[in-house]
Amino acid sequence: MRKSIATVSVSGTLAEKLDAIAAAGFDGVEIFENDLVASPLSPEQVRARAADLGLGIDLYQPLRDFEAVPAEVLAANLRRAERKFDLMRRLGADLLLVCSSVSPDGIGDDDLAAEQLHLLADRAARHGIRIAYEALAWGRHVSDYLHAWRIVQLAGHPNLGTCLDSFHILSRGSDPIGIEAIPGDKIFFLQLADAPRLAMDVLQWSRHYRCFPGQGGFDLAGLVTHVLKAGYDGPLSLEVFNDVFRQADTGRTARDAMRSLLALEEAVGLAPQIPPPVIPTGFAFAELTASASGLTAPEPGLTASVSRPGDSDGDRLRDLLAALGFARTGRHTAKPVELWEQREARILLNATGTDSAPERAASGPQSDSEPVASAPESTRVAPALAALGLESPDPAGSAARARSLLAPVLPRERGPDEAALDAIAAPDGTRLFFCHTDRPGPPDRPGLSDLSGLSDLSGLSDLSGLPDLSGLPDRADQGGLLGDLTRASWVGDFGPREPVGGPVSHIDHVALTQPLHHFDEAALFYRGVLGLRPLPSLELPDPYGLLRSKAMASDDGSVRMVLNIAQVGGQHVPWQHIALACDDLVTTARGLREARPDLLLPIPGNYYDDLEARHDVPPELRELGLLYDRDEHGEFLHLYTITVGRVFFELVQRLGGYRGYGAGNAPVRLAVQHAGTRG
Amino acid sequence: MRKSIATVSVSGTLAEKLDAIAAAGFDGVEIFENDLVASPLSPEQVRARAADLGLGIDLYQPLRDFEAVPAEVLAANLRRAERKFDLMRRLGADLLLVCSSVSPDGIGDDDLAAEQLHLLADRAARHGIRIAYEALAWGRHVSDYLHAWRIVQLAGHPNLGTCLDSFHILSRGSDPIGIEAIPGDKIFFLQLADAPRLAMDVLQWSRHYRCFPGQGGFDLAGLVTHVLKAGYDGPLSLEVFNDVFRQADTGRTARDAMRSLLALEEAVGLAPQIPPPVIPTGFAFAELTASASGLTAPEPGLTASVSRPGDSDGDRLRDLLAALGFARTGRHTAKPVELWEQREARILLNATGTDSAPERAASGPQSDSEPVASAPESTRVAPALAALGLESPDPAGSAARARSLLAPVLPRERGPDEAALDAIAAPDGTRLFFCHTDRPGPPDRPGLSDLSGLSDLSGLSDLSGLPDLSGLPDRADQGGLLGDLTRASWVGDFGPREPVGGPVSHIDHVALTQPLHHFDEAALFYRGVLGLRPLPSLELPDPYGLLRSKAMASDDGSVRMVLNIAQVGGQHVPWQHIALACDDLVTTARGLREARPDLLLPIPGNYYDDLEARHDVPPELRELGLLYDRDEHGEFLHLYTITVGRVFFELVQRLGGYRGYGAGNAPVRLAVQHAGTRG
Repeated sequence: MRKSIATVSVSGTLAEKLDAIAAAGFDGVEIFENDLVASPLSPEQVRARAADLGLGIDLYQPLRDFEAVPAEVLAANLRRAERKFDLMRRLGADLLLVCSSVSPDGIGDDDLAAEQLHLLADRAARHGIRIAYEALAWGRHVSDYLHAWRIVQLAGHPNLGTCLDSFHILSRGSDPIGIEAIPGDKIFFLQLADAPRLAMDVLQWSRHYRCFPGQGGFDLAGLVTHVLKAGYDGPLSLEVFNDVFRQADTGRTARDAMRSLLALEEAVGLAPQIPPPVIPTGFAFAELTASASGLTAPEPGLTASVSRPGDSDGDRLRDLLAALGFARTGRHTAKPVELWEQREARILLNATGTDSAPERAASGPQSDSEPVASAPESTRVAPALAALGLESPDPAGSAARARSLLAPVLPRERGPDEAALDAIAAPDGTRLFFCHTDRPGPPDRPGLSDLSGLSDLSGLSDLSGLPDLSGLPDRADQGGLLGDLTRASWVGDFGPREPVGGPVSHIDHVALTQPLHHFDEAALFYRGVLGLRPLPSLELPDPYGLLRSKAMASDDGSVRMVLNIAQVGGQHVPWQHIALACDDLVTTARGLREARPDLLLPIPGNYYDDLEARHDVPPELRELGLLYDRDEHGEFLHLYTITVGRVFFELVQRLGGYRGYGAGNAPVRLAVQHAGTRG
Repeated sequence: MRKSIATVSVSGTLAEKLDAIAAAGFDGVEIFENDLVASPLSPEQVRARAADLGLGIDLYQPLRDFEAVPAEVLAANLRRAERKFDLMRRLGADLLLVCSSVSPDGIGDDDLAAEQLHLLADRAARHGIRIAYEALAWGRHVSDYLHAWRIVQLAGHPNLGTCLDSFHILSRGSDPIGIEAIPGDKIFFLQLADAPRLAMDVLQWSRHYRCFPGQGGFDLAGLVTHVLKAGYDGPLSLEVFNDVFRQADTGRTARDAMRSLLALEEAVGLAPQIPPPVIPTGFAFAELTASASGLTAPEPGLTASVSRPGDSDGDRLRDLLAALGFARTGRHTAKPVELWEQREARILLNATGTDSAPERAASGPQSDSEPVASAPESTRVAPALAALGLESPDPAGSAARARSLLAPVLPRERGPDEAALDAIAAPDGTRLFFCHTDRPGPPDRPGLSDLSGLSDLSGLSDLSGLPDLSGLPDRADQGGLLGDLTRASWVGDFGPREPVGGPVSHIDHVALTQPLHHFDEAALFYRGVLGLRPLPSLELPDPYGLLRSKAMASDDGSVRMVLNIAQVGGQHVPWQHIALACDDLVTTARGLREARPDLLLPIPGNYYDDLEARHDVPPELRELGLLYDRDEHGEFLHLYTITVGRVFFELVQRLGGYRGYGAGNAPVRLAVQHAGTRG
């Protein structure tokens, strides 16, 4: 369907908005009055610029407080309307939005409203202009979409139709099924906005918290389905008032907007061009970067050094990994990257600070003026979680879907013998690689998954976090050179490896810190591109602010991510972490506490006083510094390591189907971490 | 009265909170459970630290969902309570807050609630502990303060009383008069929070938007008056949940909190130690700083240079001032500061970037880790509005009041012949000088106001912005060396001056950009210290975000300030400006448009199309680029200059008693300014 967006939905001057909207692939715009008034471009120049960019001006808005007024006010209102018609002629726009009146002058008389709207439509018709009448959720007398439609029917003028706005309909709790009774050709326009479910004044909610479809709590696919059934074939147009988007980069907000419409079209069955989601089946690896000076002097052997004061960040990371049971199993054949493994958990240590994904990722995933979380300045000074490998049953398919949903694909230089990894940039700057991992063993089987190794996993079968490998295509399906190349195991680039046993079975989840301006964008991105399902957002106290947190997971729990925004005072580091699943965390914790207590985050005794008042828990938790949580499905044990740069590790054990992330314990963790950084 | 604050009201670890709260002068704290649980300090250590700091632990909170439960739940609740009593013994606290239950287990039965609270109070009594029962505004069965009080009466136990919380009472619209019927000795505690008037879910409102007394819309003085009439003599305790304060510097938030209680005490007649406000009678000067390289090569004469490409910022400022009709009338005898004057408008150009107020102000007004708006890094690179001189009828009295409300007083080095200017730092880093200005003329009358010069002002008598000089003490009242010294005119330091005529009569207002974290603090500061009255906040669209704006003015309009927060994308400059009052702005604008059109901000034609559709305005406005506004009192003409560094000028003319600031035109101005900075 034709796709449009109101200029108010993105930041910038009107000229910048038009450029970014066109670049994101929209067909048209709604010109918002304030944007035009503040623009140095004349209406004729706006018209010409839009035309050059291939954008239609689908709507001019709004004319306010027009209908159902006393006669003396009507004359003034018609004069105002004539001014708008003149302006629209200069703009080349032929559809004018009239919002239901909020004026105290307005009269609650549908016949009068219809009569005056008829008069307006008649005047408009002389200019070749049509009027779309819309019920504002806070309209004084008309606030329901069916009420507005009844008035349009009463008016009975061919140049008068209705405009539906998903926010005004769904925020009031109206049933959108009634849309189907409106003839499609009388629905002159459809404005779409999602919004989080907030209990607040609807006007404030509308003006500050709207978001793009798929980012909030409304069922927009359901509403659009009703509109399509009514026979509407006009534009899907986004009209979003959002305090955060107002401040964000124009170009990326426009792409985010387009991504939301593509996903919405897919949800209503109108986007056959978008490849279906390829749900990742696990984490292939997590990649940590550190400054070159921190990693360029690795130990000669495969065992890590003991940490000493003055050690580099790289040495501290190696020390931590070794203490957690990891071993270095390989080095990249061409790059200063080490592979550390423990069973199915893999960590890459990257000494370049920018990795294999070159300049474009280092300067932000997109051509933005706004800095991203993993800008090179910060990744070079402090170790950070810069990339994730996602195990994909169809890496090329994963990448194709990502591309179709406007994910920036990262060009990568590689040697002739390197595996082709398809990589994209997430909104937070994290690089995502879609890949396929060979299990350790003889290096003579590049390109194919060693499914026979599944027996090795039998010991993990009670873990709900176990990757579901049943969806992997049969080896026989993979034929030809192309299949081999795109599915070549990335681990081949690290030379022959030996399996590493240990208590850690795999990566349970990763927690990524999101820039404030891109939280909604990131949630939609991970949901649309990876097919992860979001849980409701949480707000957690931090000693220096609040942590907003949203977990997203694949249905089988094999890929879990936590997106955090730290709204804390400026000087605080946004931490990231990797949570590692353990078979028997009590035993593992006991070993760590004996061998390397210096690596464990100390948990205050007050935490256990409170925990023991609330639950009947064994004394080992206090003794070992383990944290505890429960939900209706099971229980959760976890502990945290100290932080190196921006990164720390969590060891977790899920018992009996627990689905959470121990979020209730995060405030205690944050307080201890802050205390540590502040001496 | 004794002053307390809940630890949740400020940011930081529990230890940091206690330190800052003590440093701000509080007598006690409420320990918030989450703060204790996350603290590495044991309860005994917290007790010892508080004692060392001179802080009592006035309340421990909260015990939730206790009362009116089925018998089987009661047993568990009493066990929980015993744990709290034990904890309170270790803390040395003897008052426990019980909030009305929000649990679905709760039963709406006052007798049962009273019976169970009696039982709790009985147990508490054995530990020497008292229970304060409080109605949460969103309590399931008990949400009104008088309902909670009836249950306390029903329970009838000496160790059970009520806790009043201003938010829970005023957010529901309850009439606080009923407090007077509660015996003062049964009001065990009083928690105070203000809040802006928001139409939203009361729980969210309470958790995120509370603020300190005087920063919101509640009548706290009225409520406290009722509580005092009831006979309460316990602490005034602040309990504020605020997303911004959570992120702000601990120490300054604690001082802000104390300032709010001092002002509240004054409002209810309990702070005789605070000197009365001395309302400033006008702007003595506004001081602009520029980097030294920008100002150290001034022209030899008193007329400004013509601006050329490549000119320094200082030259550009001089050019602008000269074009607006100012003349340089003097140089500071000891410092690289120039005085520019036009009638009663005075601008200082300061080449040091740090001015006469020394290091402390340059590194922020207080010993904060958080950067302030006028940090030296920014003031040195771009011209900024760094200081204001406020004409005070009693500079020493102004400074004494500021000190008593915890304003940081700035130490100043001065030469033996320099005037003693009392200066304080505002929360946004602006330096405020309380001073007294001699009118130009022979330099032989230092220290005394030249009231005979009033005849010069006759042409201004129709301007509502005219400083009211009638309150100035008679010259005969000023006797002795001390009086002369403290009232010595600062202009004496600039040598002999000649009066400068011109179209600009005085500074109408200044607009200061506030750091987000200190907006509420700044509003309270200017209100309390200077006695300015705030107008309601406005939100204005900016192409890259939103501008929140609050105007504050003295009753007679002689001092007007606009506090702005620019919530825009990170890379945008926070602009400041000085608005200059003109007698005849049409004539002045015509002259400027002819002589120096390059200095005027161009206003888009679309603005006039829209203006002319709304109002019947003369065509001169479009021709001259003048902006227009009206309110119920009068009309407003204004125009803007281009920006130099962070600073621009506005020329304004108020017609017929207009009281606003042309805020409706700010979005157009911002769009044009942004377009200019982005080429």
